[in-house]
Formats: sequence, C-alpha cells, structure tokens
Amino acid sequence: MSIHSVKQAQSHLAWDNRIQPVIHVNSGETVTFDCLDASNGQITASSTPAAVSTLVLAKCDQVNGPVYVRNALPGDTLQVDILDITTADWGWTACIPGFGLLADEFQEPALKLWRLNTSEGFTWFDEQRGMKTPLRPFAGEMGVAPAKEGAHSTIPPYATGGNIDTRHVTAGSTLYLPVEVEGALFSIGDGHAAQGDGGTAIETPMTVKVRLTVRKDKSYTKTPHFSTPAAPTSDAYYWFPCRRRRVDIKDAARASVRHMIEVLVADYKLDRVEAYMLCSVAGDLRMHEVVDMPNYVIGFMLPKSVVPIVD
Amino acid sequence: MSIHSVKQAQSHLAWDNRIQPVIHVNSGETVTFDCLDASNGQITASSTPAAVSTLVLAKCDQVNGPVYVRNALPGDTLQVDILDITTADWGWTACIPGFGLLADEFQEPALKLWRLNTSEGFTWFDEQRGMKTPLRPFAGEMGVAPAKEGAHSTIPPYATGGNIDTRHVTAGSTLYLPVEVEGALFSIGDGHAAQGDGGTAIETPMTVKVRLTVRKDKSYTKTPHFSTPAAPTSDAYYWFPCRRRRVDIKDAARASVRHMIEVLVADYKLDRVEAYMLCSVAGDLRMHEVVDMPNYVIGFMLPKSVVPIVD
Repeated sequence: MSIHSVKQAQSHLAWDNRIQPVIHVNSGETVTFDCLDASNGQITASSTPAAVSTLVLAKCDQVNGPVYVRNALPGDTLQVDILDITTADWGWTACIPGFGLLADEFQEPALKLWRLNTSEGFTWFDEQRGMKTPLRPFAGEMGVAPAKEGAHSTIPPYATGGNIDTRHVTAGSTLYLPVEVEGALFSIGDGHAAQGDGGTAIETPMTVKVRLTVRKDKSYTKTPHFSTPAAPTSDAYYWFPCRRRRVDIKDAARASVRHMIEVLVADYKLDRVEAYMLCSVAGDLRMHEVVDMPNYVIGFMLPKSVVPIVD
Repeated sequence: MSIHSVKQAQSHLAWDNRIQPVIHVNSGETVTFDCLDASNGQITASSTPAAVSTLVLAKCDQVNGPVYVRNALPGDTLQVDILDITTADWGWTACIPGFGLLADEFQEPALKLWRLNTSEGFTWFDEQRGMKTPLRPFAGEMGVAPAKEGAHSTIPPYATGGNIDTRHVTAGSTLYLPVEVEGALFSIGDGHAAQGDGGTAIETPMTVKVRLTVRKDKSYTKTPHFSTPAAPTSDAYYWFPCRRRRVDIKDAARASVRHMIEVLVADYKLDRVEAYMLCSVAGDLRMHEVVDMPNYVIGFMLPKSVVPIVD
C-alpha cells in the first residue's frame, strides 16, 4: 500500500464539488494530512487577546484536501479509519463574539493559550488548584463534497460531514460518510487537542493519518456515523444526523434513535420493536456539538458491550 | 442515627404540598423505602402484552413518602445521598401507546419481560446472539413537594425533581434538590434496573436507602443537580435544569451550561469567562431523559478528574 500526503498549504475554505482534488488514491490506501489550526495560522503560541479581535473569520476553518478516492460513486459509503493524530505542543481557546452556546452572555473577546503536555496526555487549566484537562486529540472537520452545487461554508456540519466537532472520533475510530459525488472528495482539518460535547475546543495544529476505503454494503449511510474505542462507557457505536437550516434538537434526537434502529434491523436482524426497546434501555443521547450554527450534531450511542460489533 | 422506613403502601400519585408526611426525620438520618414498580403492581413477572393494553395510567408512577425533614425551610437545599439500591429479580419494558421519543412510530402495545441476574450484574437481551445489558439500578423519581399549590402529575420532571429518570443518580451518588416547603416533603419511586439516556427503562420493584441532610450553604440550588461515581468518563458532576410547559432543548442546554458556570464561580472562585472556557473544553451535554412529557431533562457534566470535588 502506498502512503500519500497532503501538505499544509493544500487547503480550501468551502465544501464545493468543483474544487480540484490535490491527490488521487485507491480504496484502502492511507493518507497523511499536515494541518494548521482552525485560525489558519492567524493565532500563534505568542498571540494576545487582540488577535481574537482582529481575526478574519473568512480565513478560518480551512480543510486540507480534497482527496479523490478511485471507485467511490454516489450512494457508496466512504469508510475513514483514523490511524494516528499528532498535535503541536500548544493550543488556544477563545471567546469569539457571536460564537458559542452562550454567545450573548460572553460578548468580549478572550483568549487562553495552553501548553500541551503531549507525552503525559494532559494540559493544566490551573496548576495551583489542580485543575487539568486530559488531551483527547481529534479532527473537528472531516467530510466529503456534497452533490449540491455551490460553495458551502465549512462552519456548519452537513449530512456529508464537515465540522462535526465530535470528540469521540479520535485515533482508533472509524467514521462512515455518504458519498455524494464521484471520487468522494474527502478533506480534513480543525485540529483539537481536547473538547467537551458543547463545542469550543483547544485548537491546535495537527498531523493526522487516515485510511480511506470505499464500502458498497452500507446503504443506510445517509448521514455520518462512527464506531469508536474512545467513548465514555467503554466502546461505543455512534450514529448522528445533521439537520439543515432550522435547528430542531428534538427532531435530531428522534432521527438519531431512528437511525440506530435501522442499523440494528439491517446488521443485527432485530425487528423494529425489539430494536427500539434495546435503544431505550441501553443507549445514550448526546449533544456532540451545539456551536457550529446553524446545524448542530446530536448523537445516539449504543455501547459495544451491549451489541457485539458488526464491521 | 436512627433508621426509618417507608412501606410499599405508603405512596401517593401527585406532587402536592397538602399530602401529609408518613414519617418525620432529623437532618442526617437514613430512610429505607420499599417501592413497587412504576405500574404500581399492575404488571407482574407473568404478565402478557395484554397487560399493557389494559394498564390504568392514572395508577402509575406512584412515589413513596412524603418524608418530613426537620429544619428544612424554603430556600434550603436537601442533600440526598443514595446509599443502597436492591431490585427484584425481574423487570419489564413496554411500548405504551403515546409514550416515548418515537411514540408515533411505535403505536402497538408491546411488552418485554427480563430476568435480572442481579448477582452477576446483567440481563440478557438475546442470549443466543450475545446481546446483554448491564444492570445499573436507580430510582427514576426523587423529588420534594413544590411550593405551587395543587396536585402536579408525577410524570414530568420539575425544578423540584420528580421523574428525572437520570440513570447516573445511582447508589453512591448525591442528589441536591431545592427545598420549597417546610420539611421538604421528600418522596421516591420508579425503580429501574437499567436505562439509556433516552428514557424507557427496565422497570422493577426496588428497595432504596437514602440519607437526607439539610444544607444551608448551596444557594445556587434552584433545580436538581448531582455528583456521581457512575458517570461515563469516570467520576462526574452533573447539573441539570428542568423546563416547564414548552420543551426547548436548546434553552435547557444553555441553562445547564450556565448553571455549571455558577457552580464553578461559587465553589471554585473562577471568573465567568474562565469557567465558560473550562466547560467548553472539558464538559459533556447529555439528554438524560426525553420521554416524560412535557418536560425533558438536559444535563451538563464536568468530570471530577478535571475539577477536584467540592463537597
């Protein structure tokens, strides 16, 4: 298997199926991406809060790629195995006016720089008080080009992925994305050293290695879903839909459960009532991110300890 | 310390501050409650799905109590330490027409009976396929009488607790409830052997032992919150608001984060911006239950590994 690479400068600022691929790969091959942080280099390890005030949002949230995967056709599923993630030794968190779940209550720009103890796997929030955050690096943006023409912002998540900001999709996880255009046109970016379910993360430059495989046997993939060894209860299986335009978290929650039922019916041959009952007694409903307006990501998780995993 | 007990028959069917207490206890004393399942004995280990069709909902979701705690005054906090929970060796799960997140898609009554391997801590969903659910018993209903006059249904959760259906409030957890009337008037019920975050559980009879303590120093307790050793990431600290009448999950999510910020400011002396950033990078947003219409329970969790616990 050859190993391909995508360089820091090979990035783009919209999901758009007219953007030419930077490399072509075969199904099953691995690609290493070298990515700047989500400010596209505007914030550095020596920045002050003034950098937040002068941040050019139009340059932010770039993604690296796109990668053309041979034999990927609309209706297929792109399997993305996340093999390895390495972050820089620093990161930043900001209050950016207008962004975030409590944006109206935190209107002043603010910036926090973090030193990442990558070898020990944590970063101090306040060393004197013993408050620290474990490092759980992941790429906030992973997606494929949508069939719908035009340049779509990289800020909201879509049915084709993008800014899903889902912290459990880390090294060792497998993400499944619906292919909407020939070659899939996969891109990745938005390095995070750690993040809660809410949204704003410790932003950081990142190198990430993934294996891209075309799957013809997962017809229920209409929105992103994934399996992960990094979930709260132990191992878990997540499934989440993305809603467009109008945010309706309850509808998204219903869709999440419905999709898990579809997986249980298709892969485990349960009937729908059995599957619904199993979801009721054993599943988790999470808000993976609620900051990437106007689309949020709601997920339903079923631990692998409950259902033996189906590949 | 004396140990008090509340019997199976000492139950009531509404939250109502006019209901006379069945016992009086001092702050810091323990009480053992013997509770029927949430069908109030209408469903048994030998029931058929017909029992769901004939279920009298008006008799369901009884709670045992109320217990008058001396020295508890409006504005205080009632600390409920859950010391021990024992379930029966059987439980049930049902599709009840009109109930549940996907109620409109599952309109036929259905019943599943479970044999609970309480000594081994799991129950088979399907032994042949290796599908099983771990037992994590908890009381779905824990609450105090509201100041607002009248008989309030025990089905929705309220700011005073009630049907919070939050599976992490299990043995070893501590729940904090706002006291709204003299004596607090605490009741408990709705035994669950296991439940997902969504809502419908494995319903079961239960014996539960709690310690009830009046706290005068937790003025931010306006809605239930809790700490638990049973949370996904390891130890965790949950806080959740309850919304009345109109379900607005986004508002509830915002309120959850805002309340955690209040805790971090009050107990950890962080400033609001610091607290918001810490929540962003380290917290979880969960839907604890979305079935107890018209109020749902949304929670924000911060692991104890991030913030050293404050009692």
